[in-house]
Amino acid sequence: MLTLGTALDRCLRLYGARPAIVDPEGTWTWREHLERARRAAGVLQAIGVRRGERFGILARNTFRHCELLHAGYWMGAIPVPVNIRLAPPEIAFILRDAGVKALAVDEPFLPLLDHREIAPFAGTAFSLAPADYERRLAAARPAQPVDCAEEDEAILLYTGGTTGRAKGVRLTHFNVVSNGMQCAMEYGYRGSDTYLHVAPMFHSADLLGTGYTLLGGSHAYLPQFSARGFLTAIAELGVTATMVSPTAIIMTLQELRPADFDLRRLRFLLYGSAPMAPEWIARTIEAFPGAQVVQGYGLTETSPILTCLDFAEHRRALASGDATRLRSVGRPVTGVDMRILDDAGREVATGEIGEVVVRAPNVTAGYLNLPEATAAAIREGWFHTGDVGRVDGEGFLYLLDRKKDMVITGGENVYTIEVEQAIYQHPDVAECAVLGVPDEKYGESLFAAIVMRPGKSLTQEQLIGHCRERIGGYKVPRQMVFLPALPKSAMGKILKTEIRKQYRDPAKRGQ
Amino acid sequence: MLTLGTALDRCLRLYGARPAIVDPEGTWTWREHLERARRAAGVLQAIGVRRGERFGILARNTFRHCELLHAGYWMGAIPVPVNIRLAPPEIAFILRDAGVKALAVDEPFLPLLDHREIAPFAGTAFSLAPADYERRLAAARPAQPVDCAEEDEAILLYTGGTTGRAKGVRLTHFNVVSNGMQCAMEYGYRGSDTYLHVAPMFHSADLLGTGYTLLGGSHAYLPQFSARGFLTAIAELGVTATMVSPTAIIMTLQELRPADFDLRRLRFLLYGSAPMAPEWIARTIEAFPGAQVVQGYGLTETSPILTCLDFAEHRRALASGDATRLRSVGRPVTGVDMRILDDAGREVATGEIGEVVVRAPNVTAGYLNLPEATAAAIREGWFHTGDVGRVDGEGFLYLLDRKKDMVITGGENVYTIEVEQAIYQHPDVAECAVLGVPDEKYGESLFAAIVMRPGKSLTQEQLIGHCRERIGGYKVPRQMVFLPALPKSAMGKILKTEIRKQYRDPAKRGQ
Repeated sequence: MLTLGTALDRCLRLYGARPAIVDPEGTWTWREHLERARRAAGVLQAIGVRRGERFGILARNTFRHCELLHAGYWMGAIPVPVNIRLAPPEIAFILRDAGVKALAVDEPFLPLLDHREIAPFAGTAFSLAPADYERRLAAARPAQPVDCAEEDEAILLYTGGTTGRAKGVRLTHFNVVSNGMQCAMEYGYRGSDTYLHVAPMFHSADLLGTGYTLLGGSHAYLPQFSARGFLTAIAELGVTATMVSPTAIIMTLQELRPADFDLRRLRFLLYGSAPMAPEWIARTIEAFPGAQVVQGYGLTETSPILTCLDFAEHRRALASGDATRLRSVGRPVTGVDMRILDDAGREVATGEIGEVVVRAPNVTAGYLNLPEATAAAIREGWFHTGDVGRVDGEGFLYLLDRKKDMVITGGENVYTIEVEQAIYQHPDVAECAVLGVPDEKYGESLFAAIVMRPGKSLTQEQLIGHCRERIGGYKVPRQMVFLPALPKSAMGKILKTEIRKQYRDPAKRGQ
Repeated sequence: MLTLGTALDRCLRLYGARPAIVDPEGTWTWREHLERARRAAGVLQAIGVRRGERFGILARNTFRHCELLHAGYWMGAIPVPVNIRLAPPEIAFILRDAGVKALAVDEPFLPLLDHREIAPFAGTAFSLAPADYERRLAAARPAQPVDCAEEDEAILLYTGGTTGRAKGVRLTHFNVVSNGMQCAMEYGYRGSDTYLHVAPMFHSADLLGTGYTLLGGSHAYLPQFSARGFLTAIAELGVTATMVSPTAIIMTLQELRPADFDLRRLRFLLYGSAPMAPEWIARTIEAFPGAQVVQGYGLTETSPILTCLDFAEHRRALASGDATRLRSVGRPVTGVDMRILDDAGREVATGEIGEVVVRAPNVTAGYLNLPEATAAAIREGWFHTGDVGRVDGEGFLYLLDRKKDMVITGGENVYTIEVEQAIYQHPDVAECAVLGVPDEKYGESLFAAIVMRPGKSLTQEQLIGHCRERIGGYKVPRQMVFLPALPKSAMGKILKTEIRKQYRDPAKRGQ
């Protein structure tokens, strides 16, 4: 049976004595972890959450957060992990839209309960602060398992909502377990692995951990990203696999010397949500010498993985000096039937541009309370991703958004990733984003937004000088701003569209 | 989409230039192989086979046999590979029962078409003899792909029929692809693997190759088993993975010196359908030093794999000297929900004996034309295997049939596998089977059926003397027969029940 309850029951029966959770607070075997998850389900039941009903989780990445997810799968209730970076009205909207009966709130977010937008919440909120939660857990009656159907909703995840309101994506047990199997076979997951949950647990990227549960592997959690916290967790918790954003990898390699940490056990490092410059891929491979470095692409609606660019492709590209493939998000994983369609809904010829559509076991059952949006997205069994791309003769997918990363200035093609890579080589630069802005003379010109490392400063002239030593003059940004931080998505992806919006007025872009 | 047609289409789109078939006759890329499979589908269509209809295949393991299977998946017609060892009335029954519209017949079996039982076959038979088949293929019009549903029947396989008539097991696309994924993730299949099809292609064990198709791996075929043919294929075709019976492994290691062949590329060796003596497991690991040696258990009705005993368990058992685990068939693979039920249908306590029942994506849609048998086997979603066993505290399944391999003689427990192992150490013994027979004095006594190697002979006394040097006197069989061959199933499994039946009369058992 491809349900998460069955998967957990299997861990209990087969892997009871193996570690499920590895944490600085301690280690819990699958038997111990599931005993706690069953009690967490008892807490939810005592509050009045029944099978088929939803409950919210507003929490950092912690093993207690995981216990609540597993409690839901065990008792057939549906967890709704809420983005902790949302504004109170956005959180209030999700609680209403999902009709959650209860809300588990991590310590730092408890004050939000008094916010005027959230206070009217009709369900029961309870604290995940360790002392409060442990007391409840100890008093709870462990819940009996519920036999869910594969097509039952397992988890409800809200998508970003960059346009219009956030949409609740209903992922079924079959969706989530299927993608767990797809990832496990594609990436070669093992039962002996320990997976570090770095991507936020309210994001679909967290489901990359499902395959490890299917195999009886172990889970570790990073409540908040920092370079030191990340490398320390890998070294001290025996982490063998993880998923992070390119930004997080680059930040880590800039701040710390990986050689100061024992990272040899890491054998799998997936980056996603953005491509990475070849220079940084090479440095990543060097920093994690035991790890297969791979790229994945997917959406919340696809539970999440659709494609994979494997380690062999990375090495081949680096060795050949031809980085073309590194701009691809890879090839569809098993069970993903992918087509590129033109505006008329016909499949385009190889290499032609169109919308990416897929048919796969990991495609969502639909959006909550949005039948029209569901019908628009899933037509005759095909899910329309809204992403535009092309596929080469060997099945590699290139997303067109990534092509936006190319700027044409004075007739010359400039890949912004190359410029960013040059800027990142400056030891005092913490983060940067390069984009093309309209220019009367050159069509487009290059504009950079820079974040300096704490206590460091640079003039625009100094940074231009630094770039000139590394890349052709036409690739050097002539307009720059120095900012305290860059706008980012919940996944840590730099939002260039936001930067573009804020600096639409040329006067704001400096000289 | 979890259909075999989608899987083949994916190979065409992603892995077109990779080898699909590696054979002494040549190598075919996925593009070339599927072009041939599409033409084979054209051959079937020209004969009048339509979507949803069945066609028979009576053939050895060859790449042409594979082309016909893939032709069926591609055009939505259902292949029915027929056991080539069946008697003509049995073959005729299957052709009628399955209602096949066409029958592809391999060269050695062409004379069967004239047999009075088979001659009345109403469909169209055609020859798979290379010259005939290639001529048809060249003239055929490549078929267009058909979009099958996951729940459509993909292949019809007949089970042994040791009791009553053979039953056609309807495996859906979803069944077969699910087990392909289960095997791929459990055993760590890779797209760079080359899988040698040794188990007969009319047997469900052949479906162990599905996972390699899902990953764009390569396939090689062994038309007829011989020790030399087996090792030569591994060495010369670059085989990295295969599945064989313990009998075939033992025969191979007895006849040949593995060191004379380049077997280093073999990294995965699965044995199934019977346990293997620790001594032979150790010798197998030594002979194939790069291979993970694992055991699998399953049934035709489960597409086929249900459980796996992994390599680590084998090594652990050998290193500790405690062979208990080697008598287990392992633990359920991902997605297999397994229970042991008592006669009242209640789950037994850990370690208690009962019927093995499972709920899994790889469980058949049912038997063809046998609604009662289907309803009896699949109750409330649980498939009743008919196998009796018990599960230990870590989820390892022990089949009770294997317990029949224990004989109690004069109050002493004797494992026949241990006795067989002692006999196999004699260089002149090709095969043997040891079983318990009723004995007035001792309750049971030990009886051995022996096949000598060609040109060799032994007296009963010599063999008893050989055994006495190796195992306790009470374990030495006192009754023996020397036979030209042992009765075996199509999978090469020695049929002890047959031996028991033939030698029920004590007078036949020698002294």
